[in-house]
Amino acid sequence: MEGKNFRRCLFFIFSAVLLLIFAVYNLPNQLANKPELLECTTNSPWCISKNRILGKKPNFLHQSTTALRHDHTVDVPHHPLDPLTIQEMNKVQKVIKSLYKDTVYSVHSLVLEEPDKEVVLKWKKGDDLPPRKASVIARAAGKSYIFTVDIETGEVVQQVTSHISGYPYVSLEDMQTVIWAPFSRSDFNRSVIARGVDPNNVACLPFSSGWFGKFEEGRRIVKLECFNTEGTANFYMRPIEGIIVIVDLDTDEVLEIVDKGKHIPIPKAAGTDYRLSAENSPIFKLPNPVSMEQPNGPNFVIEDEHLVKWANWEFHLKPDPRAGVMISRARVRDAETGDMRNVMYKGFSSELFVPYMDPEEAWYFKTYMDAGEYGFGLLSLALDPLNDCPRNAKYMDAIFAAADGTPYVRSNMICLFERYSGDAAWRHTETPIVDQEIREARPKVSLVARMVASLANYDYIIDWEFHADGLIHVKVSLTGIVIVKGTSYANMNQVNGEELYGTLLSENIIGVVHDHYINFYLDMDIDGIDNSFVNVHLQREYTNGKSPRMSYMKVNKEVAKTEKDAQIKLSLYNPSEFHVVNPNKKSKVGNPVGYKVVPAGTAASLLDPEDPPQKRSSFTNNQIWVTQYNKSEQWSGGLFAYQSHGDDTLQVWSDRDRPIENRDIVLWYTLGFHHVPCQEDYPIMPTVSSSFDLKPVNFFERNPVLRVAPYVEKELPVCKAAASA
Amino acid sequence: MEGKNFRRCLFFIFSAVLLLIFAVYNLPNQLANKPELLECTTNSPWCISKNRILGKKPNFLHQSTTALRHDHTVDVPHHPLDPLTIQEMNKVQKVIKSLYKDTVYSVHSLVLEEPDKEVVLKWKKGDDLPPRKASVIARAAGKSYIFTVDIETGEVVQQVTSHISGYPYVSLEDMQTVIWAPFSRSDFNRSVIARGVDPNNVACLPFSSGWFGKFEEGRRIVKLECFNTEGTANFYMRPIEGIIVIVDLDTDEVLEIVDKGKHIPIPKAAGTDYRLSAENSPIFKLPNPVSMEQPNGPNFVIEDEHLVKWANWEFHLKPDPRAGVMISRARVRDAETGDMRNVMYKGFSSELFVPYMDPEEAWYFKTYMDAGEYGFGLLSLALDPLNDCPRNAKYMDAIFAAADGTPYVRSNMICLFERYSGDAAWRHTETPIVDQEIREARPKVSLVARMVASLANYDYIIDWEFHADGLIHVKVSLTGIVIVKGTSYANMNQVNGEELYGTLLSENIIGVVHDHYINFYLDMDIDGIDNSFVNVHLQREYTNGKSPRMSYMKVNKEVAKTEKDAQIKLSLYNPSEFHVVNPNKKSKVGNPVGYKVVPAGTAASLLDPEDPPQKRSSFTNNQIWVTQYNKSEQWSGGLFAYQSHGDDTLQVWSDRDRPIENRDIVLWYTLGFHHVPCQEDYPIMPTVSSSFDLKPVNFFERNPVLRVAPYVEKELPVCKAAASA
Repeated sequence: MEGKNFRRCLFFIFSAVLLLIFAVYNLPNQLANKPELLECTTNSPWCISKNRILGKKPNFLHQSTTALRHDHTVDVPHHPLDPLTIQEMNKVQKVIKSLYKDTVYSVHSLVLEEPDKEVVLKWKKGDDLPPRKASVIARAAGKSYIFTVDIETGEVVQQVTSHISGYPYVSLEDMQTVIWAPFSRSDFNRSVIARGVDPNNVACLPFSSGWFGKFEEGRRIVKLECFNTEGTANFYMRPIEGIIVIVDLDTDEVLEIVDKGKHIPIPKAAGTDYRLSAENSPIFKLPNPVSMEQPNGPNFVIEDEHLVKWANWEFHLKPDPRAGVMISRARVRDAETGDMRNVMYKGFSSELFVPYMDPEEAWYFKTYMDAGEYGFGLLSLALDPLNDCPRNAKYMDAIFAAADGTPYVRSNMICLFERYSGDAAWRHTETPIVDQEIREARPKVSLVARMVASLANYDYIIDWEFHADGLIHVKVSLTGIVIVKGTSYANMNQVNGEELYGTLLSENIIGVVHDHYINFYLDMDIDGIDNSFVNVHLQREYTNGKSPRMSYMKVNKEVAKTEKDAQIKLSLYNPSEFHVVNPNKKSKVGNPVGYKVVPAGTAASLLDPEDPPQKRSSFTNNQIWVTQYNKSEQWSGGLFAYQSHGDDTLQVWSDRDRPIENRDIVLWYTLGFHHVPCQEDYPIMPTVSSSFDLKPVNFFERNPVLRVAPYVEKELPVCKAAASA
Repeated sequence: MEGKNFRRCLFFIFSAVLLLIFAVYNLPNQLANKPELLECTTNSPWCISKNRILGKKPNFLHQSTTALRHDHTVDVPHHPLDPLTIQEMNKVQKVIKSLYKDTVYSVHSLVLEEPDKEVVLKWKKGDDLPPRKASVIARAAGKSYIFTVDIETGEVVQQVTSHISGYPYVSLEDMQTVIWAPFSRSDFNRSVIARGVDPNNVACLPFSSGWFGKFEEGRRIVKLECFNTEGTANFYMRPIEGIIVIVDLDTDEVLEIVDKGKHIPIPKAAGTDYRLSAENSPIFKLPNPVSMEQPNGPNFVIEDEHLVKWANWEFHLKPDPRAGVMISRARVRDAETGDMRNVMYKGFSSELFVPYMDPEEAWYFKTYMDAGEYGFGLLSLALDPLNDCPRNAKYMDAIFAAADGTPYVRSNMICLFERYSGDAAWRHTETPIVDQEIREARPKVSLVARMVASLANYDYIIDWEFHADGLIHVKVSLTGIVIVKGTSYANMNQVNGEELYGTLLSENIIGVVHDHYINFYLDMDIDGIDNSFVNVHLQREYTNGKSPRMSYMKVNKEVAKTEKDAQIKLSLYNPSEFHVVNPNKKSKVGNPVGYKVVPAGTAASLLDPEDPPQKRSSFTNNQIWVTQYNKSEQWSGGLFAYQSHGDDTLQVWSDRDRPIENRDIVLWYTLGFHHVPCQEDYPIMPTVSSSFDLKPVNFFERNPVLRVAPYVEKELPVCKAAASA
């Protein structure tokens, strides 16, 4: 045992040194984006990191209509909101290095410091760009630093962070090294072997510890859970239940090994693999594929890599390592006037909360905040053309920074496509009053911007869908793999009233009950910066004998004065519409122009408000919030979410109760799912979705798609089946 | 005036006689489905009936890939649930005629009397059909009759109906004649002219009166509201506000003319027309259409006109004059065993409720029950290929009966198509643990059965969508035209706190606040007839110091013993999953097999439970109900909904509180929309949708689409743009 352990240590040191050598000698390659640097070699830490950067271009990308569009090393910014280019990141990296000199440092975020709103709103194409600045979050000597670097001058402005709890999200490199820590402990290896597992078949993944008190304070820690990789690619279905290895993320020192559940067998590998290549049984294929076809290409253009123009819409689209996708300056053309009108200054997924509902030692801490703890964008990997997005999709790459500040390319992180699902934008059939038959219908075509974040086991598909009628449909879809718990039970008839905290999905596998919440930052600027939030309340009114009717539903509009007026819990029997209006701009007949947020199916957190995980993710305390715009308030779970105490959250900001009437305001929406797993989720779960809409309400004078043309046969594509082609 | 009025009467009598002559001499033509019989000749009542049967084949049908599939006069039934054929209806018509001899009668429903469930379940293809019977609802000499006709023997079995209130839905012929009644009154014509409207430009539509007390008892009445048709096809936007003509439906006698609101101008015609042909301004067209293409045709077959087989699904699909579409014997193939498994014996939209929220005289009664008052299927007109349904759709015709029992063909009433929207059925991207990259995604393809009911102004799109993972997605979409109220206001700044009961949409037009509810009958038979309803309740549980966590969410399963246990009001903060399980059949690991109903966005009625409209549509008192199966309990608003008192409703049945555990049970779901109209709904509203799912839960042993093949480039269609083709 000690021998194997020693060999592991040797190899670990060797590969660390190897990486260092690369870092020094391959800098030019890195700058030129030679992702081979990050190539996956057998047993290299990259290969078992939860979050390995996709170094090599996957083969199937070559099927894509869009391989790497060009050499990103020559990218230059065109728009004040364009993300940092490789060249800009390299300049910043030099500044960082000179800043820390010989001190060991790690970069946890390196993104554009966006100019102030007024500056961006004033800017027009052709104007010089406002000074380009980088926002950097780094750690050195056990401290977290936030600073801004002026890319031109190299000037650095530092912020103080001591006042808030928590840490920046863990870097990929943090995880890539920490997953080896358990193998340095002979007791760990012994325990694994005692369970009949060869340590060579063990993969450990880092799970954020959350914050529950003293233990999670003063140091960055992670809890590793390990899996048997033998016989399946779906190792998540083979947990080595009960072993939790707690490690210091800065020192990689093992702080504690929890070793319980020795009696729990490791679930079988058979039937867990989901890969096509591993499927022995016959594959089900519909003989005649149905495909979304657009032979002449899309109707949208992507100007300067980030400015999307489609139909009556225009918006800035960029990848972000924390949020995933950021939509900015969303504007829609008014068919009546021809003007481009402001709708949303900025929209993105601000934070997630995924609490598992098992209080036992190996599970209680599983209360993930995936954007703030891991980086929702960092975990958005290259999309699979034809299956993640339809054939008519186009793709966008991301440029992210490694822990030493080196930029790298995440190819095909976002896809953009036009959708026609066979639905009507509007239709009506009428009796022919004027001696002619009337049957009018118009096809509904929309534009979808999509990313998929793979947070280890789970996959989150985020769609921003723009409709020609002015509606923005935001859809969150869950798929991927449910994280499961090992159990000695093989059948429910063996359970004598014992609480499982989930569903027995297969022999020795429990799908633990959990929730998913995703909170969206929606800086609505309806025809200008100053907006108001109106609760359009529907309530029963009695006619008191003035009508044969006893009752009807009456509309009462209440303008929210301060932030607490806009802490909204949805209720089916106490319903409202929720409008963001511009009180300074009226329609022809005198209605304030606005948009409404339209919830669909959602879920609310049932945890106690004082429960540490709930405090940290207190953005789930309401479904709708409205705050006064504040450039620094973007991350609803806190800027430093990792091990945070909940002292820098949307709840805290909103409780300041600032005035929000006729001000620059931000709308926040929290979408939720309760997930009681079922057998159909095993070994990989069918997609489930929920959504919300941002819908124009008296924003247009009339139906903005009234003049859209119907489909006619002779204008549609001419297609042959592949076989017959 | 009297002259014009007299001419109108003369013409009406003339055309009535004309119809009679046709009816006698053209019977053979009718049987051979010569719809020219119902041809629309200028000013014939057919042309202004709210519900004119589509006599002529509309021209654009010729663009259709599916014109009339064949001569329906030769149709024969193949399945116990197949609708009555033309030949069968003709036999029944003879029986009806002989039954009433010289008495004037009208047929309000003539459909298949379905055999008992056990008989249908026993039947296998190749067996003789059980005796074919017709269920007839007729009126004669001021009475309603329900009887069953044995088609082979002609034997008639009559039911007593005296114990329940209300009347059958109005026949098309009822409406086609009654709309002329107002013009027989000189005071009506004078009043119209006084408003500056030429009676030749007036169209009156029949609105159901509802029931509010004595006035609506003892006789069938209708309330006519009239519109100025001058200058627009969208006459709904030109109400002659305040005039309500109350007419006896059996005698066409005008009972009362309410004549108020003389001061209210008739809104302008300009900008109200939605027809492409009427559009003078430039049409907006995306240059590169995106199309759902399937050049080799669909993967489904329609056996014997009604049995649909697609992927792992099989179900019986038929049009129904009251429900619209009926789905029966929905079964899914289990990929593990190859067996076809029962999911739903029967599903259809049972009733609608559309209360407007204006208590004033011309509006308070507008509380429509569209299925029971008008016939949801009777108002489902031919679909527009390419725009109502995608290019790859196939169509199904309906055979309905006219008021004299004569069958006619409603062509292209239902469309059926496979959908691919660019979404994934499941996907996962994994770090390459075993030295290979894993990125697996599968396209989501589904099968949609669609109908569209046009209830005068409103259009309801009903989609039954079957997914290969066993999910049934039921979607209701609203579009068409909002019924509006005339007002003297042209701008909100003229309104001094007066209640409008809606939104000022344009000069002199108020979109009145209203709700839409649609109730679905869902006879779930999960792997057999005897099922149970389980409330899978989620609630906060405290750990009481046994864990660093304070709280978690616990699952408690409660089996409903009786019907009242299953009267469910949804609550975001008191959530549950709602399972229909087969307690007699367990999965391998011992979970009962089941399906769950998954609500999405919905709305609840805020009317007082004792308010007459609410009593009549009391199916809106809960979102979910479960009743003991009873063949006679199908119409949740009552069999005779027209002017009903609410004595034969889902609420009444459920309050009997019958046992429902491990029994044959029926699940009912009520989907709702609150609609506060906005300017974008003018002059025709963009589609809004909501939905619910029926989702397998521990029904399959594992993910049933695990083995579905991904799309690969070389198998997809080869397409050219029309222009370049």
